[in-house]
Amino acid sequence: MSDMNAASAGHQNPSLGDEIVGRINRLAAISETPEHLARIFLTKDHRAAADLILGWMREAGMDAHLDAIGNVCARYEGEVAGLPCLMLGSHYDTVRDAGKWDGPLGLITAISCVANLHKRGRRLPFAIEVTGFADEEGVRFASTLLGSRALAGRFDESVLGVKDEAGISMRDALSAFGLDPHHIGAAARIRSELLAYVELHIEQGPVLEAENLPVGVVTAIAGATRLAARLTGMAGHAGTVPMQHRRDALAGAAECISKIEELCRTDERGLVGTVGYIHATPGATNVIPGQVSFTIDLRAPTDPHRKRAVADIVRNLEAIAKRRKLELQVDVTHENRTVPCAPWLKAQIAGAVAAEGYPVFELPSGAGHDGMAMFDIADVGMVFVRCRGGISHHPDEHVEVADADAGARVLLRLIENFRPRDATQ
Amino acid sequence: MSDMNAASAGHQNPSLGDEIVGRINRLAAISETPEHLARIFLTKDHRAAADLILGWMREAGMDAHLDAIGNVCARYEGEVAGLPCLMLGSHYDTVRDAGKWDGPLGLITAISCVANLHKRGRRLPFAIEVTGFADEEGVRFASTLLGSRALAGRFDESVLGVKDEAGISMRDALSAFGLDPHHIGAAARIRSELLAYVELHIEQGPVLEAENLPVGVVTAIAGATRLAARLTGMAGHAGTVPMQHRRDALAGAAECISKIEELCRTDERGLVGTVGYIHATPGATNVIPGQVSFTIDLRAPTDPHRKRAVADIVRNLEAIAKRRKLELQVDVTHENRTVPCAPWLKAQIAGAVAAEGYPVFELPSGAGHDGMAMFDIADVGMVFVRCRGGISHHPDEHVEVADADAGARVLLRLIENFRPRDATQ
Repeated sequence: MSDMNAASAGHQNPSLGDEIVGRINRLAAISETPEHLARIFLTKDHRAAADLILGWMREAGMDAHLDAIGNVCARYEGEVAGLPCLMLGSHYDTVRDAGKWDGPLGLITAISCVANLHKRGRRLPFAIEVTGFADEEGVRFASTLLGSRALAGRFDESVLGVKDEAGISMRDALSAFGLDPHHIGAAARIRSELLAYVELHIEQGPVLEAENLPVGVVTAIAGATRLAARLTGMAGHAGTVPMQHRRDALAGAAECISKIEELCRTDERGLVGTVGYIHATPGATNVIPGQVSFTIDLRAPTDPHRKRAVADIVRNLEAIAKRRKLELQVDVTHENRTVPCAPWLKAQIAGAVAAEGYPVFELPSGAGHDGMAMFDIADVGMVFVRCRGGISHHPDEHVEVADADAGARVLLRLIENFRPRDATQ
Repeated sequence: MSDMNAASAGHQNPSLGDEIVGRINRLAAISETPEHLARIFLTKDHRAAADLILGWMREAGMDAHLDAIGNVCARYEGEVAGLPCLMLGSHYDTVRDAGKWDGPLGLITAISCVANLHKRGRRLPFAIEVTGFADEEGVRFASTLLGSRALAGRFDESVLGVKDEAGISMRDALSAFGLDPHHIGAAARIRSELLAYVELHIEQGPVLEAENLPVGVVTAIAGATRLAARLTGMAGHAGTVPMQHRRDALAGAAECISKIEELCRTDERGLVGTVGYIHATPGATNVIPGQVSFTIDLRAPTDPHRKRAVADIVRNLEAIAKRRKLELQVDVTHENRTVPCAPWLKAQIAGAVAAEGYPVFELPSGAGHDGMAMFDIADVGMVFVRCRGGISHHPDEHVEVADADAGARVLLRLIENFRPRDATQ
């Protein structure tokens, strides 16, 4: 509101959204097969995509190169050369049968914003870097955030020996791509080089759509705990065992699932819990299930909140199992910390959202993002853009041109108004 | 109590149980493989078992033959030749990895009872027939009660074209066994030839064990309705969709399963309901299930009771689906009528149980039996014998010798005291 100069800069670019969507479509044409979108780490499609993006980066007035893990990296110098940077980015790999917006929207929008500055000859009192992370989804080697972990200096070298479905190790795939697996450490950046890391991404959920808003300010990337639960009772004939004699593992699991749902539904601080997989043994119509396995995925905007919820759920499941004379086994199979977005970045993003004329709406990210790795070397901020129906990781994933444009205007205004943390204190 | 002569006949045979268990073990040695018991319709093991049983039948003073479907049939004439018969029996096929008592106990006990009469030169004012039904389990051609349906004149000839897993049709299997598939009709008996059909069988459930009783009087063979239910909601990311936006098909199914259990548990007339199979799609840890399929098996001692329960459950599931904005599809995949045991036979069985010194305890059969088919040509009665832990269709299936003996004494007393229905009216 206070900076009319920056506001007008945004309004001078009514076609930012069109340019972005055009590039989204060009990038989506680079895929393993024409039938569905799949752009997998270190494949030839991945390389073709990197080359296309590097071209756009250079067109936008940036120096651009491929780093040691395959990230596409570009730099737009500030008023003088060598200043610390505001890093923008997202990933350019995809899942299989993907949508075309998850990852590329944030990367392409960042390039378009820099192109806009470049076209106007605008230099800022800090550098801007744009990074297209090589592998966020982890499809090929079952290990996520490979690009951002390498950039954050947290790449786990043991992963180099992991083989894909075709039996090719990551080490060999890197060599075939033209990279040196012995020098992944060269991708690492250090904290003093970065003023912040800001990522724009599609929401991948239905909240902004329900709120009728094109953009939102992310509060945190929710941590997740995954549990594997197994209930063991006694199998039996569906006709001959009276109800009061049963130790039905599936009836027990049903009560557990309802309890998990109830605990999450009644939580008022963003806890979400999902039972996505269930298997009943022996699994015959006329046999009482003797054993049931199911998974639990729990996420919350803070770690203590999630950990309390995990303990609470396990305690409830134990009580259900005890009352039903079932054995319960629960194991933690996966745990990710919560990454909070920096308050000072949230405030600047909120300022940009408001300056573009939208209500400021905060929401957590339930999905994981490269910011989870970048948090090790920089304060992290995120902007979410509405996607249709909250659908993601699916060909139906969709963003309206107007929303892509809104996201770009917010990001551009954020960049132009950006003040480093020290300056805000 | 009133017939001390018959009572003493029972007590003259302390070894009836030993003889029966010895034969159970000999028959169990005839199996597809030595590792597990499997005696499948129209195999060479099935034929070897038939020959062994025919030998025991002849030893017991009966005329014995294999009928047109492979049932082993034996007749012990009454005081004069050609009288209507009291038919006793059970089946001699098994499931795979079976226990050795399910079927053979009733058949072998009946033979031992007749052998006892024969040894004493006892003839009754009616004939006794003992039938070993060829296929009750329906393992090979996925169609149950083949032996008893043929005997009851209700064999469905279209089943002859059904092929087993090896691609052999029932028609060819009958020919290979030495039977003529064009003459299965010759196995049929008519109502006027039978005074009643009485079957002794292991309970296959835990009720007699819980009651601390060796035998029980069956009230009915419970009818069954099987339903296939499908709930469709909306798949979504486990992290990005808030609880209140979800249309989680598995959370809905869990509520349905709990409701089915509650409705059956609170029913006081023997209703049992089982969800034995469940499948959630897509079935990934981090994806909200968009669709869940599950089965429902419902049984009750009377048809109207079961039908009311089916309607009640469907109504409840519809309400759950509506409230959760899920689509519900429910289909009946299988329906078996309830076969009530004839009150006059129940009374005579109860009399025999009491005369042997046991409390009379009535219970329904939740499992299916050959009596379901025999009901078309005869009044049906059943005696249940306790089995350990209610376990059946499993190698751990077990009956104590003392209980086999108790069952045999009850059956022998029933035979000796038997009065045809006309005589009881």
